[in-house]
Amino acid sequence: MDSVKTIRAMESAPYSISALAAMKDCGESVTLHGIVHAMRNFGGVRFVVLRRYDGVAQVVTPESVRPPREGDAVEFTGVIVAEPRAPGGFELRAKTVRVLSTPSEPMPVPIHRTNMGLTLDTELSLRPITLRNLRARAVMKLREGLARGFRDSLAARGFTEIHTPKLEALSAEGGANVFRVPYFQQRAVLAQSPQFYKQMMVGVYERVFEVGPVFRAEKHNTARHLNEYTSLDLEMGFIKSFEDVMATETYALARMMETLRGEYAPQLDALKLVPPEISGIPAIRFDEAKARAAEAYGLPRTDPNDLTAEEEQAIGRYAAEKLGSEFVFVTHYPSRKRPVYAMDDPVEPRYTLSFDLLFRGMEVTTGGQRIHDYDSQVEKITSRGLDPAGFECYLMIHRYGMPPHGGLGMGLERLLKQLIGASNIRQACLFPRDTTRLSP
Amino acid sequence: MDSVKTIRAMESAPYSISALAAMKDCGESVTLHGIVHAMRNFGGVRFVVLRRYDGVAQVVTPESVRPPREGDAVEFTGVIVAEPRAPGGFELRAKTVRVLSTPSEPMPVPIHRTNMGLTLDTELSLRPITLRNLRARAVMKLREGLARGFRDSLAARGFTEIHTPKLEALSAEGGANVFRVPYFQQRAVLAQSPQFYKQMMVGVYERVFEVGPVFRAEKHNTARHLNEYTSLDLEMGFIKSFEDVMATETYALARMMETLRGEYAPQLDALKLVPPEISGIPAIRFDEAKARAAEAYGLPRTDPNDLTAEEEQAIGRYAAEKLGSEFVFVTHYPSRKRPVYAMDDPVEPRYTLSFDLLFRGMEVTTGGQRIHDYDSQVEKITSRGLDPAGFECYLMIHRYGMPPHGGLGMGLERLLKQLIGASNIRQACLFPRDTTRLSP
Repeated sequence: MDSVKTIRAMESAPYSISALAAMKDCGESVTLHGIVHAMRNFGGVRFVVLRRYDGVAQVVTPESVRPPREGDAVEFTGVIVAEPRAPGGFELRAKTVRVLSTPSEPMPVPIHRTNMGLTLDTELSLRPITLRNLRARAVMKLREGLARGFRDSLAARGFTEIHTPKLEALSAEGGANVFRVPYFQQRAVLAQSPQFYKQMMVGVYERVFEVGPVFRAEKHNTARHLNEYTSLDLEMGFIKSFEDVMATETYALARMMETLRGEYAPQLDALKLVPPEISGIPAIRFDEAKARAAEAYGLPRTDPNDLTAEEEQAIGRYAAEKLGSEFVFVTHYPSRKRPVYAMDDPVEPRYTLSFDLLFRGMEVTTGGQRIHDYDSQVEKITSRGLDPAGFECYLMIHRYGMPPHGGLGMGLERLLKQLIGASNIRQACLFPRDTTRLSP
Repeated sequence: MDSVKTIRAMESAPYSISALAAMKDCGESVTLHGIVHAMRNFGGVRFVVLRRYDGVAQVVTPESVRPPREGDAVEFTGVIVAEPRAPGGFELRAKTVRVLSTPSEPMPVPIHRTNMGLTLDTELSLRPITLRNLRARAVMKLREGLARGFRDSLAARGFTEIHTPKLEALSAEGGANVFRVPYFQQRAVLAQSPQFYKQMMVGVYERVFEVGPVFRAEKHNTARHLNEYTSLDLEMGFIKSFEDVMATETYALARMMETLRGEYAPQLDALKLVPPEISGIPAIRFDEAKARAAEAYGLPRTDPNDLTAEEEQAIGRYAAEKLGSEFVFVTHYPSRKRPVYAMDDPVEPRYTLSFDLLFRGMEVTTGGQRIHDYDSQVEKITSRGLDPAGFECYLMIHRYGMPPHGGLGMGLERLLKQLIGASNIRQACLFPRDTTRLSP
């Protein structure tokens, strides 16, 4: 049996920045790995900024140590001493260095600068490298924090996490803006949303959520659209009204921002961001929001059934100036602009029991109550000139019983874009997909 | 401002089963919602089994209460009393019932039975309904637990969560088993794995993981293949050898099983499952594993560069019988069967520094060390007759510096299939995709 090894569980993570800070002035020899992020020379003293998994550390190297180069993967050994001017309040006084790997070419762009001075196009074309910039890295870390906060907050409220298929049969609702995929002897489409699947899962677990990719074949190349993005979806049963869904989103958003304030403080500091405090979110009816924004800011008359991007901005401004909130729910969207599963308001069926959430003037969520009754759903499908037979799998849940339910989908990149104040949504996505960009 | 409402954060989840259990015999009136999962009549007493988000509760209804029907969404009001024979040790003595919604047809299959007695094909065709069966629901809840355990264990070790694109340009490595997607003026493919992207992200965060869908256009319709599945991926820098990756997997799996034992005990009990205890996992070299299994169980000679499903089973059996482990790492796969990014063993370049993990005789993970040096990667690409120009974005990371690194991909459905002892992987997936199945 000599040739059988036993693999034991990894015992610990590499030293964290805070663990290193705690070791200052203890005099013990420490070995520290990282990537050489930047090199500086001050009055004959050589400083290396080491990029590590959870931050950066400063290393001082004596002349006896051969200087590494930018981009080298290195291991320094030395002692840690207090240095209030260094990140984390410490530096490593290196005695030796070991270079583990070295780039074959010098860095093509100044990733060690706070502002790299690149056009967005260049930044995205070199994305595997430009993400190493500390600001870009901090932004994407916040992305993690938002997704984690969403999950944790819902798990704490009894929601079950699901993973639904992204390849699906073309629904009878139509083929606008869907990517089509040849699938063996059939034709599949890429999911535009987990909508029908998450509703099905309400019949199973009552409350569910999903974090996953969705695909929209929209042809417009704008600063606020992506052709693939991460959707934060939830769906819940036994709601008393669609306000329960909004209350759940208010709760989840509040927790997501708390998660950032708590565990992502270094990233917030690096980006000089303060996430909004959320105690409650104002809600205005669609017609009224549209009218008030038009009146307050002198907007032209537009399609009475929809909001333009300009109107969304104006409503966001109105909410900030008059209602004291960076978030605002716009409720009761006209039925004709909402999908076939949206529940109409029984009091005024021209409107739906639905909402969008605007954050700093941009739609980041669409949600509402869904039809749970079989006859009502068949009737609405038929009233739109569609054939209920094309919705057979979906209607299965209505046929065999569904509680009153509703839910929402939140665009992670839009939320992050608005949070960091980016001018383009591509800055809130690791490897954005638009009508021309499929790589990197 | 009258017409502006303020939406407050949702304050709490509905009563959990354990909260209800704690309220027994307190005499207070409680309102409880749920779906009527089953109805029983014992000696003139009517019992309702109520399906709720986190379990089932028993309700006793007096004759004065109109009996609800299977599948109804209901709200019972009454008092909770101790009842050792009921699930959770309590029952609700209902005084009133409110029916919130009702199915339009009786349930087509006996979802309230432990064993529904359906063929797999029927079960999958009625998946939105058959998942409501308590066993199916427990299985999918364990799925959540495994994914959560994977994420939490890695986050605790300094890994950053990423979401990489599922639509990508066709790589020069080839188009076998990829789904092709017309993408505006280009052709995209669906990601078979986040491989290149997670390696790119090692240059950014050092340690990363992703939980997301992957797509394989494999034509075989077997009990262990899906055309879309959930992959648990990790990738880590600064490894000393590929054993660090195996040690990380050992750690993660141990924590995942602990998560199940801790938070998913009701589901484990319902399925009569005991997750394996993992303290260490044996590792055998490919050649030796193949030879030992052949010798021990008299298998025929096969392709010396690969393992058949039968050989994997035999190696799993060997590990269980001779090494006392349900998991076994098989290391040093022949280079010609491993991808172009796999690092060859410098001692014997015919083999790679790679591994598979078998769980109860089935491969559930593939991993290994990757090439980090630019020249070595270009050379390996060229040696396979491929054009390095086709790997431009990927090679960017090698060109501008990568630490020694490695990683793995774990198939969530395979892991769950083996854990629950299912005969078919489709039972470990909410809505499985195979060569003929695109819906539900």
